[in-house]
Amino acid sequence: MALSKKPVTGMRDILPGEMQVRDYVIGVIKETYGRFGFTSIETPCMENIANLSNKQGGENEKLIFKVLKRGEKLNVAQAQEEGDVVDFGMRYDLTVPLVRYYSNNAAQLPAPFKALQMGNVWRADRPQRGRYRQFMQCDIDIFGEESNLAEIELILATTTTLGKLGFQGFEIRINDRQLLKAMASSSGFSEEDYDSVFITLDKMDKIGMDGVKAELLENGFAPDIAERYLELYRGLEQAENGLDYLREKLGENLESSVTEGLREIIESVNAAKAADFRIVFDPTLVRGMSYYTGPIFEIVMPGLGISCGGGGRYDKMVGKFTGKDVPACGFSIGFERIILLLTESGFRIPNAPKRIAYLVEKGVEGQAMADVIAKAQAAREEGVQVLVARMNKNKKFQKEQLTAEGYEAFVEFYREALKNG
Amino acid sequence: MALSKKPVTGMRDILPGEMQVRDYVIGVIKETYGRFGFTSIETPCMENIANLSNKQGGENEKLIFKVLKRGEKLNVAQAQEEGDVVDFGMRYDLTVPLVRYYSNNAAQLPAPFKALQMGNVWRADRPQRGRYRQFMQCDIDIFGEESNLAEIELILATTTTLGKLGFQGFEIRINDRQLLKAMASSSGFSEEDYDSVFITLDKMDKIGMDGVKAELLENGFAPDIAERYLELYRGLEQAENGLDYLREKLGENLESSVTEGLREIIESVNAAKAADFRIVFDPTLVRGMSYYTGPIFEIVMPGLGISCGGGGRYDKMVGKFTGKDVPACGFSIGFERIILLLTESGFRIPNAPKRIAYLVEKGVEGQAMADVIAKAQAAREEGVQVLVARMNKNKKFQKEQLTAEGYEAFVEFYREALKNG
Repeated sequence: MALSKKPVTGMRDILPGEMQVRDYVIGVIKETYGRFGFTSIETPCMENIANLSNKQGGENEKLIFKVLKRGEKLNVAQAQEEGDVVDFGMRYDLTVPLVRYYSNNAAQLPAPFKALQMGNVWRADRPQRGRYRQFMQCDIDIFGEESNLAEIELILATTTTLGKLGFQGFEIRINDRQLLKAMASSSGFSEEDYDSVFITLDKMDKIGMDGVKAELLENGFAPDIAERYLELYRGLEQAENGLDYLREKLGENLESSVTEGLREIIESVNAAKAADFRIVFDPTLVRGMSYYTGPIFEIVMPGLGISCGGGGRYDKMVGKFTGKDVPACGFSIGFERIILLLTESGFRIPNAPKRIAYLVEKGVEGQAMADVIAKAQAAREEGVQVLVARMNKNKKFQKEQLTAEGYEAFVEFYREALKNG
Repeated sequence: MALSKKPVTGMRDILPGEMQVRDYVIGVIKETYGRFGFTSIETPCMENIANLSNKQGGENEKLIFKVLKRGEKLNVAQAQEEGDVVDFGMRYDLTVPLVRYYSNNAAQLPAPFKALQMGNVWRADRPQRGRYRQFMQCDIDIFGEESNLAEIELILATTTTLGKLGFQGFEIRINDRQLLKAMASSSGFSEEDYDSVFITLDKMDKIGMDGVKAELLENGFAPDIAERYLELYRGLEQAENGLDYLREKLGENLESSVTEGLREIIESVNAAKAADFRIVFDPTLVRGMSYYTGPIFEIVMPGLGISCGGGGRYDKMVGKFTGKDVPACGFSIGFERIILLLTESGFRIPNAPKRIAYLVEKGVEGQAMADVIAKAQAAREEGVQVLVARMNKNKKFQKEQLTAEGYEAFVEFYREALKNG
């Protein structure tokens, strides 16, 4: 039987041109985050299925690629449901594995612990253009830092990295889950409705104030509550300083440390930033995951209007593994989106080594071939990238292909010349 | 329910200290192989289960982690056997995915195509010390190069890389599947017995000539055939030049291009090598996979006596995907073993950036904190790795931990001192 040449549905082969950009970006990320004291770690791509189905992953838990049990533990004929045949699952993000890792290894890790993870994750999403079922994530996280030094360092490290990759004029939007909750609470929403309210609020960018109000009413919320909520957002639009306005408006519904914390993060980031971007308070920023407990943030690229990464504080997740909470805060950059933006903009890798192709006629063998290779070795020692290849029959086409691969110069070696030489 | 802190059975978390070594080694590998014109590629970690069960993978096919079907395609209650519930599998090596990749993308790839792949593979081996069910492989392969220029470049690239990582005095052992077959054939073994004979021959290192002969007889081979076979190997031990000896002994059973090819590879590698190693003809070298069609080779580290990587020519595999064979040759280094050797020998990363930890007293906030961070940013710009962290209550222990992490200097920031300017 002939074998299938295609990758599995929804996943893709990565060609050399894109891989060069990916390798370059990975290098910049590792070096820049390294400067901030983040250390690389790695976890297995599989986790126990119970860890992945614990409600921390929200909608992603419906998209898990599950791994079949093996050996004696597997009895397909007698199995009744998935749980009978599955023990592991492919990770759908890097956060759940990271928290497990921290819980498992805390005794051997420094405090604070600053982790950098780059790795593939898998989600059985419906295949669609530009969205794949295996993709790379790139996260930095800090454990054991309760002050907003964590948020400041995460934002500075991420923006410095983006700057080194050539991005400019982007925006970091920041908000706080406690602020979101206080605004909802003071308007009269009850706690069990927050998730639904925030899903609607998250659409403000697209559907505007009126759209948000209409959807809240559609979802059955009382008109006076919805009105009070929207009134807060209208006031914010007029306010000279949103944080001052909310602190005054929300009064006892909000601890002053929340607005002060946001102000301090924004000011410190502005004072120390090493890239061209703005950091702005965005009271409509929600971020999907319900595990966030404090500040949340997001990267928006100019002109795109879509998120290119984000993160926030999640102080209550380690406790689910160990019974004891540990402050935690993370920032994930949209690695695949960044690669797409770079490749689509014709990005050229800076300081790439010079590339020369040695084309060797068929029949050049023995000592003559050894001489060609020795010459190539000497050039490689000096930092040149040298491809030694047999000259194809269609030399013109071969050179065109190699030029497309980035080869700038060609040296041709012929049997006769080498004999005489 | 409390979640499990442990990684899944047989897989492991990688701690920061080891990851630093891994990242460094990956960097050296990518840079050095790059100089030889190898370009990175990537394939999905999953393949269609039919591609993984096509007998190319030998024993590894019994160790596949299989992936459950999803959605409507899955009906566990009515399923009778594995095939009913499984569609994908985790790759157990990088060769099968690479050949599929080449077959799928050949039109967009240069000729010859020189690929570098680094990625995890999964095998459901019985868990044992030092052997894990997820591990990294690192392969280079050349497609479309029929001459032994491929073998020469693969061996030079691999040995140059090992040299740059500090390894010396190692051995490259080389043989040829055609030579192995000619020796078996001329002794009187029939073709269907070769695999069994080679499995026994592979133990020569451990059980010696007598052991090999005893096992051949045990396996039911005729004494005169076994004796003729061993006689060849005894003759080789005495011979001044093994390749000359075999060429004479095997006569018409062997095309002269086989011994001449090995001689040329050995001489060219010796003439151009950029590391301290020996390349030697080893007529007992077998390499497990039956897909090899020509020269095969293996790295042996001094004193260890175990393989630390290997490869060979496999000219008949692309045809299984496309119906048309393409010359192919690859070399895989034992990435995990190399990491183990380096970490166990107390390897220190050369030219690592200087590491300084800024320890900031609790209560340093606002402008004072922004000043500390700005100072850190300036040092980072100059290439220093700066960790900004809150001073812990037990400052002595914190410094000890950070020293173990490689931090060489500490700067302490106190509220009072900063206030006074």
